[in-house]
Amino acid sequence: MQDSSAEAAMKRLDILGAISEEPDRLTRQFAGEAMQRAHDEVAEWMRQAGMVVRHDHIGNLRGRYESDTAGTHTLIIGSHLDTVRDAGRYDGPLGVMVGIAAVHRLHDLEKRLPFAIEVVAFADEEGLRFSSTYLGSRAMAGTFDRADLDRTDAEGTTMAEAIATFGGDPSRIGEDAWQGGTLLGYVEVHIEQGPVLERLGVPLGVVTAIAGQARYEITYTGEAGHAGTVPMRGRRDALAAAAEFVLAVERDAESHDGVVATVGQLSVYPGASNVIPGEVALSLDLRHPNEAIRVESTRRILERAREIAARRGVTTRTEQLSDHSSVPCSPRLLALLAKAVEAGGMTPELLPSGAGHDGVPMSALTDVAMLFVRCKGGISHNPAESVTTEDVSVSINVLSRFLELLAKA
Amino acid sequence: MQDSSAEAAMKRLDILGAISEEPDRLTRQFAGEAMQRAHDEVAEWMRQAGMVVRHDHIGNLRGRYESDTAGTHTLIIGSHLDTVRDAGRYDGPLGVMVGIAAVHRLHDLEKRLPFAIEVVAFADEEGLRFSSTYLGSRAMAGTFDRADLDRTDAEGTTMAEAIATFGGDPSRIGEDAWQGGTLLGYVEVHIEQGPVLERLGVPLGVVTAIAGQARYEITYTGEAGHAGTVPMRGRRDALAAAAEFVLAVERDAESHDGVVATVGQLSVYPGASNVIPGEVALSLDLRHPNEAIRVESTRRILERAREIAARRGVTTRTEQLSDHSSVPCSPRLLALLAKAVEAGGMTPELLPSGAGHDGVPMSALTDVAMLFVRCKGGISHNPAESVTTEDVSVSINVLSRFLELLAKA
Repeated sequence: MQDSSAEAAMKRLDILGAISEEPDRLTRQFAGEAMQRAHDEVAEWMRQAGMVVRHDHIGNLRGRYESDTAGTHTLIIGSHLDTVRDAGRYDGPLGVMVGIAAVHRLHDLEKRLPFAIEVVAFADEEGLRFSSTYLGSRAMAGTFDRADLDRTDAEGTTMAEAIATFGGDPSRIGEDAWQGGTLLGYVEVHIEQGPVLERLGVPLGVVTAIAGQARYEITYTGEAGHAGTVPMRGRRDALAAAAEFVLAVERDAESHDGVVATVGQLSVYPGASNVIPGEVALSLDLRHPNEAIRVESTRRILERAREIAARRGVTTRTEQLSDHSSVPCSPRLLALLAKAVEAGGMTPELLPSGAGHDGVPMSALTDVAMLFVRCKGGISHNPAESVTTEDVSVSINVLSRFLELLAKA
Repeated sequence: MQDSSAEAAMKRLDILGAISEEPDRLTRQFAGEAMQRAHDEVAEWMRQAGMVVRHDHIGNLRGRYESDTAGTHTLIIGSHLDTVRDAGRYDGPLGVMVGIAAVHRLHDLEKRLPFAIEVVAFADEEGLRFSSTYLGSRAMAGTFDRADLDRTDAEGTTMAEAIATFGGDPSRIGEDAWQGGTLLGYVEVHIEQGPVLERLGVPLGVVTAIAGQARYEITYTGEAGHAGTVPMRGRRDALAAAAEFVLAVERDAESHDGVVATVGQLSVYPGASNVIPGEVALSLDLRHPNEAIRVESTRRILERAREIAARRGVTTRTEQLSDHSSVPCSPRLLALLAKAVEAGGMTPELLPSGAGHDGVPMSALTDVAMLFVRCKGGISHNPAESVTTEDVSVSINVLSRFLELLAKA
């Protein structure tokens, strides 16, 4: 089956994939010149789909497709246009293109729904330029932190300056907060960024929750010494303690369903081959979609960190770097998405999102729901990111059916 | 009991400790200007002890105290005058000062022995300047590698140029090889650089062997992935494999007497808190004074490295960086040193040396023996290096008695 809207979406994703600040790789930061060019394209596609387009102050691009009534109910469909450095072309833009495609179908059929649709291309989700994520969706949710305006990028440009250069007024970001009346929810289509759907052999999954995430830095301090002259007995090797912790994290997560826990960074001091490690600093990233389980897992693993230190006669310090609660998806919207999948003859697969998304800040504003699209090898944040035209076609169909179901609900 | 020769030795160690290339810390490299100043002092002390002094081409300082006969038998007593960067003042110089003190006593008594004594202050043991150890003792043992002459230091000076500037002739280093007739052996007094003597509560130990040492770089390659979206099952985490190896190394060494094995370096790639480690490179340093045990331990631990990789579905690469055989001390000299300790009313404690010493290359030339002096906290290669005047006094006494016993043997 050929689907011209999926093919168009894929072609547009290729066009956006070539709009970069860097010659040989895809990098598109918040409020950069590549983002300006991307906006020019996306705004045109929104207009072709029958939408009225505006830019808000933070730099979101908003396309509005009016309802069939004078009512003010609105559904927001969105994702982000910014990327990480050396990115793939689907993480973010896919959701915007699928949203535009679904609206375009309504426009082609000259059909209006009993609610308006706003397709939002968020200005910043990855946080590459200012090390601050969700700038676009936080502005829309009314939770933008004005202190962030003083942050500077690698060139020393402040966020306020970048916003002004991009055409926004940093003093008026408060006006970006949603003021358009009753919201029906926020729906986002996004690549899975994991291998679950590929392993299940299905094109789509319905997200149950966006996992909460705790990040810690854990330091073990033992005693450095000469690798040749200090006998094994009596050593206080910080790396041996850290190694025990790495394995304890792995074992604990494996034995508690749905917990993902990762030690991604580990540094050894002094770090010479003939010196017993005196200090090791490591990162802990722990996620679970259920808040109670996440908190309990974190407590249990940090307790293990201390146990290991005490037994080995080394000391340990624990610093919490961040802690984000999990965001459950709306049961109402989730059920409609599942029904839309079933209507396509598929069994809806439910899965949590281990990565954060714009739905996290948007959950402060309205109900959220997400549809995941299978991606090759689970790879993301990498030029090797890949989705098939067939899967994109399925996602446009499911989103279109979801809009119909929501109209009847 | 006051011992003026120990006090003099300590005072001289303080003087040498202040002769540095750097203003605020002790660093004295091979053939540097600080070494020149150290030579001026040490040569004078050798002369005061009745020795005839000469410099050889590599830059060793050699003081000769003639025998009472026309015979050509010689005992070499030595250690090194070069240091690591930010060094302590005892590692190396202590052995030279104790050797000079023992000869000085003979000289004060106007006593000659039936063998000559050469006290040698080796030019380079640490290898700081040219990343090449044992330059002085290798030249004396006749195993100097002329290819090393092309090595350059941090300033781009070649070793040949450095030697010439220091007053040697690089083309004549071959003449530094021992040509003085029959050798009775090589004896070195050195700080322990470990905590064993301090734990035993004794001032001195007699070294049984200088441990052999193998160094490896071991790399685990798994698969990087998103810390939030890749479930625990199916991960191929290179750091988890490495952690298991670190603990296997520790356990194996602990359960085999005398083996010391250390992972002192460990690097994680890509090394981001939200990315599952795709690759880990780590160092392995394994030592044991018995060659058969050392080889077998190394084999067993590398086998474990492969087992862990296979079980976890990651790959491993092993690169041998160096492999030095262990050097057993001469049973004859060791027995005489032990007897000299006993004659002082102490029980001789025997222990291996986990660190390398000039005795390693000297073993190619003659029998070697070593006496270790207790050092505070086992600390070395650090300004906190510390020995007591009392322990230095005991070591001068034991070395003097050893010379008497050797004269009678």
